[in-house]
This record gives sequence, structure tokens and C-alpha cells, in this order.
Amino acid sequence: MRDVAIVGAGMTRFGELWRSSLRDLFVEAATEALGHAGADHLDSIWVGNMSAGQFVGQEHIAPLFADHLGMAGVPATRVESACASGGAALRAAFMEVASGASDLVLAAGVEKMTDGADVTEVLSTAADQETEVYHGVTFPGLYAMIARAHMEAHGTTEEDLAAVAVKNHRHGALNPKAQFRREVTAEQVMASALVAAPLRLLHCSPVSDGAAAVLLCPLSEAKRYTDRPVQILSTGMASAPMALADRKDIAALDSVRQSAERAYKMAGLGPGDIHVAEVHDCFAIAEICCTEALGFVDGGKGGSAARSGLTALGGRIPVNTSGGLKSKGHPVGATGVAQAIEIFEQLRGEAGDRQVKGARVGLTQNMGGSGASSVVHIFKGV
Amino acid sequence: MRDVAIVGAGMTRFGELWRSSLRDLFVEAATEALGHAGADHLDSIWVGNMSAGQFVGQEHIAPLFADHLGMAGVPATRVESACASGGAALRAAFMEVASGASDLVLAAGVEKMTDGADVTEVLSTAADQETEVYHGVTFPGLYAMIARAHMEAHGTTEEDLAAVAVKNHRHGALNPKAQFRREVTAEQVMASALVAAPLRLLHCSPVSDGAAAVLLCPLSEAKRYTDRPVQILSTGMASAPMALADRKDIAALDSVRQSAERAYKMAGLGPGDIHVAEVHDCFAIAEICCTEALGFVDGGKGGSAARSGLTALGGRIPVNTSGGLKSKGHPVGATGVAQAIEIFEQLRGEAGDRQVKGARVGLTQNMGGSGASSVVHIFKGV
Repeated sequence: MRDVAIVGAGMTRFGELWRSSLRDLFVEAATEALGHAGADHLDSIWVGNMSAGQFVGQEHIAPLFADHLGMAGVPATRVESACASGGAALRAAFMEVASGASDLVLAAGVEKMTDGADVTEVLSTAADQETEVYHGVTFPGLYAMIARAHMEAHGTTEEDLAAVAVKNHRHGALNPKAQFRREVTAEQVMASALVAAPLRLLHCSPVSDGAAAVLLCPLSEAKRYTDRPVQILSTGMASAPMALADRKDIAALDSVRQSAERAYKMAGLGPGDIHVAEVHDCFAIAEICCTEALGFVDGGKGGSAARSGLTALGGRIPVNTSGGLKSKGHPVGATGVAQAIEIFEQLRGEAGDRQVKGARVGLTQNMGGSGASSVVHIFKGV
Repeated sequence: MRDVAIVGAGMTRFGELWRSSLRDLFVEAATEALGHAGADHLDSIWVGNMSAGQFVGQEHIAPLFADHLGMAGVPATRVESACASGGAALRAAFMEVASGASDLVLAAGVEKMTDGADVTEVLSTAADQETEVYHGVTFPGLYAMIARAHMEAHGTTEEDLAAVAVKNHRHGALNPKAQFRREVTAEQVMASALVAAPLRLLHCSPVSDGAAAVLLCPLSEAKRYTDRPVQILSTGMASAPMALADRKDIAALDSVRQSAERAYKMAGLGPGDIHVAEVHDCFAIAEICCTEALGFVDGGKGGSAARSGLTALGGRIPVNTSGGLKSKGHPVGATGVAQAIEIFEQLRGEAGDRQVKGARVGLTQNMGGSGASSVVHIFKGV
């Protein structure tokens, strides 16, 4: 396998972007990524997107995007793994470059969620339709069950959950691309409306529009495009039973643990080697479970880690310096690629007020649904 | 890049399979492919599917399928390129094995179209929603325009169109997995109901359920699984403008031509080296345009090629020996993988009454929508 690097990145602001269509969002992010690297051609495009078919009535988006980018002819493929679609697109692009089949590949993610579809209903198609959704469960409900199980097993508290939201809003306030650039207090979080007990409005990521794109090439050619490439050291992916009822312990996310193990093994690194990480905090409890499954803290300690500041900027392992899904926004198909962009900027020392000093190795973890799929990538500044 | 081979295959019968759910279809095809090769594990799964979200309310199907196959944990990703989703899944699996990242990968395709959704409306999301579908165009209408343009430019006749259907039904009658195992006459085709002039009912592929799966490994390890592996010599993919109005010549399918050129180049072969081909005949006119774009016949000669028997079993280059989409059926996400299975069987000499004598090199061509995407693979018996 060839070594692979990211040499350019672009993303839209995340938020309610009513003036931009699905294709506009892609073109904005892709154009910025190409310009960033000074590239004028592509060998291939991979697009992560969960559900443009249901959100805006458009499947077959990848060739449509290639055309609207002015690159009709270029091979273009969509990958979907619900909210992990962006991470899955990055993984596919990585393999195409690693294989030697292509030398300059765009990995993008995009979602347009605010065009009028019933968002909760569309998102629910990422859960098991036959054994969960049919009976009325939605994602806040599924993660509420995970939260209850975690509280029961490990003594996690509502204050712990609130601490994740407070931290990620503090980070997001420093990110010009974030949907919510404002801080919140623990009191505000714990007084916000109950969505599905114990989860409140400010524990939940928002509904967002947005796109993100990164440009990949062989590491050996990276200096043509940038002085500061970021190598993708490894990729790990795993699945797990989709229905919570089919899992042994719903408070532990097996797909996250297994995808991380695979990525650590491929990189020859462990959790202690990671300086900064973007983690899938679709709900506050998800970040708690994921920091444990990634090995950043022991099982059951994810809540106290958030509360103690261990995962905050300035802490031992800063998590979600971008603001995470909670504050930066969560256009579901775009999220996995946006995570990679935050790490790209951190490892290049370009994260501004969010910069983790001395960060040389970073990790992204992107999850589908309630954890039936997870993708982990590990990156190194070159 | 490592050389890659197919070492096992499985598929459901295609048709109106009301007793099987989406996941049942996948499990049936995947289990058969694994059993065929005597394999009891997988490193990765790629699933081609156009629109389970719209057809049956289920996105995130790949990890769901991995679980229902009894392989929770295995990385599993869906790829979508409308009716070329299966070909795109095969291409992704090929790259994963070629890269060295994985040694045993399943490429599957599946679609469940008969569960009550408005099929024409769902399929229309593979065309340009803003410039085509909004104005009322559906796929029979788009291909009718392509047919009219081909007739106008090249003198193609209704008899030529009928000849494609007659040939593919004759082939499909020999295929135990085909949806329609019966022959039709040119008179029957030309007397069938007009769908969108000049296209009639018997020029159109049907609405189908079905799944297909092939097992890929490095060529160097193929003999562990089978005495007769089939090497994937090359993969080529291309996009083109989606809206017909944005194309220079709608009677020529640029994505097909370009994807074929890429596949021929990678294989070091040309159209004259192909002994048998599966081509995307979603409508009779599509096979005519594709046989030209693939270089099997000169531009404008696709119609007379079908009528003369050149593309029939026993002809110079037999096309769609499986019966094609027309007679075998067209569960859209499964089609690209089912094409590969027909070539796999042909190159192993296992195609029974459909066997092309002495076939050693075969080709598949799988197209999305009205040709905004196309994927070509070339195979060689080992």
C-alpha cells in the first residue's frame, strides 16, 4: 500500500443554509479544497451522504456533483453509512489512493437537512426499521436508553452529560464555521427542554446543512500541493448489531472499540499517542461512550473525564476542539469529513484559538446511527 | 496494486419476491457466495443499493446486513450510483483488495422494489431533480428522447429496438435465475403497449427484487477457494452531465465510452478482445447505444448489430447472455453484481445452455440513470 496524505481542505459554514442547494454546498466545499491545494484536476471523487433521496429527492448525487464542479467525466461515487457516511467516504478515497489506482482523489461529505423533510423520520431510517422504528423509536429515544444504561452501570450523572455540552459549546464558540458560536452553562443545559429523558435539548446535536471536502494524494507527491501535508496513518471500520436489543451491553459501543483497535493496530499506535481527537457526539452520551471505547479513559469514566476538563482544550486529550457535532453542527453526511478537516488544521498548527499546542498525531471517530457502524482514522503531521 | 480475482458467487432469483425482505435477499445471495468458495469469514463487505431509504424506509443497510449474515463486526459500506450501484460496489471491493488492505471481500448488490413505493417516482430521483424531474420527466421519457435522437441521427428503426428485446428474452429463457423465462417475438414487442413513444412495454426492463454477491481475494490466494478463479483485469468508471439538455449528443453515451476506454487501457485490451459482455439494457435503446460506446460496433450500428444476430448467442460478440436487464430482471442495485456473475460463469464454462464456447475474456458495463455514471469491468478466466 502507498502512504496517503491530505493536501487540501474546504468546507462550508454549518447551519441552516437556506440559500444553498445540495449541489451548491458540495461545489463550495470542493472548490475551496481544490483551490487550497492549487489543484485543477481530479482522478476520482467519493461523496459521503446519508439520505439526499429522502431529504431532497435526489439520488445519484456523485456524478451530478462532478458535473456541477465542472468536472464531468471524473469517476464519482457516493458512499452511505448513515451519520458515518463522511468517514466511510474518506476511507474509500484512502484505499483508492493507497491501491495506486488514482493519484488525486477528493473525499467529500454533504447533507441538506433543512429543505422541508421530516428530519426525525428520515434519520430514523438509520435504525432497524423492522425491530425498532416500526415500534416508534427515534434517535433521541435510542440514545436516551444508552444514557440510562450508562448511568445505571457507571454512576454517570446529569452533570456529566451537561459537561460535554458546555465543553463543546466553549470550543465551538472559537470556530468560525460552527453553527452555534456561543457558550452555554451547565445550568442552561440542565434547564433546557427534555427531549427524551435524561437527554435535554442542549445534549442533542442540531439539524444542519453543510459540506466538507479534503484532497488526497500519495504522500510521496504531497509536497507538490502543500508545504504541510497531513498523512493518514490508518483507517479502521467496524459494524455491530443495529438493534439495541441485540447488543450485550448497550452502554458500550462495540463498533467504536473495534474500529479503533483496527486503526491503532494499522498505525502501530495506542490511545496514549493521540494528541487531539474529533469524536462523534451526536448526543452528549455518545461522546462519553466513545471516549471510553477509544481508550482515552477507562470504561465508565467518560462522564467524569468531561467534567474534570481532561477532554477540554488544555486537558490531557482535547476532544472535539471544533465544537463537535453539538456546537459545530451535524449535517450528517458531511460530519466525518469535517472531523478530518479539524484534525488537518490542528496538525498543521492552523486551528487559531482552538489550537492544541504541539499536536502531531490526531484521531477522528465517526459513527452511524446508534453505533451499528463506526470509522476511525489516525493522522500525523508531516 | 495486487491482482484480484473472484472466487465465489451467489444470487437470488430475480423477480417479484414478496416473501423475502431486503435483508433476506442479501443474506441469501451472500450465504451462497460464501458457501460457493468454502469461506467462513470476511474482511469487508461492500453493498450496492440505489434507494432502500425510499423503497423500504431503511438506510444504513450495510452494517444491518453484516449483522444478519452473522458477521457483526465486519466493516460494511453501502455505495450508490443509481442503477450502477452494483458495479460501483464491485469497483470499491476491487480497490480494497488491490490496495492490500483486505484479503477477502464481499461485493454485493441488492434492491427490494415491490414493497409498495411509487417505483417510477423513486427511480426518477436518479435524474436531475431540478432541471428534469421537476418538469415531469421520468426514465421511460428520458430514454424515449435518446431513442428518437438515435433514430434521427442513424436511421435506427423500431425493428432494431424490438430485436434487442427478442434476443434478450431468448437468452433469458435459458437462465434459471431470470424473472421472465420466456421468448417474445418481434411482432409481440411491436404490438405491446406504448410507454413513451417510441418505447413500448417490451422494450423496458421490469421492476424487480433481487440480490447478487461475489467474493474477491488476491489472485495469488484464489486457489484456496476455487480451482477456477476469474481475474478482474481492470475497472473503469466515468461520469457525464446528468441532464440530457447539458449533453452535446444525447444519442452517444459519453460516460460509457470513457469508462470503457479506461477499462481497456488498464487491461491492455480492446473491444476486439472481448468474447462475451453484459451490457446495461434498462431499455432496448440503451443496449444499442452501449454496444456502440463500448466499441463492439461502429457508432450508429448498434441497432443493425442486434438485428443481424452479431450480439446474439452464436454471434461475433454475444451481449447479455443472461437475458440482460430486460429478461433477467433489474433490481437496480443488484444488477452490476449480477452482470459480473454471468461473466464469472461464462469464463468458468458453467453457463449451461447459455455458454459462449471458448470464452476467456468478458466485460460488464453498468450504467446509472440516463448515463450520468457508468462502470466497466474486464475479466479473464484463469
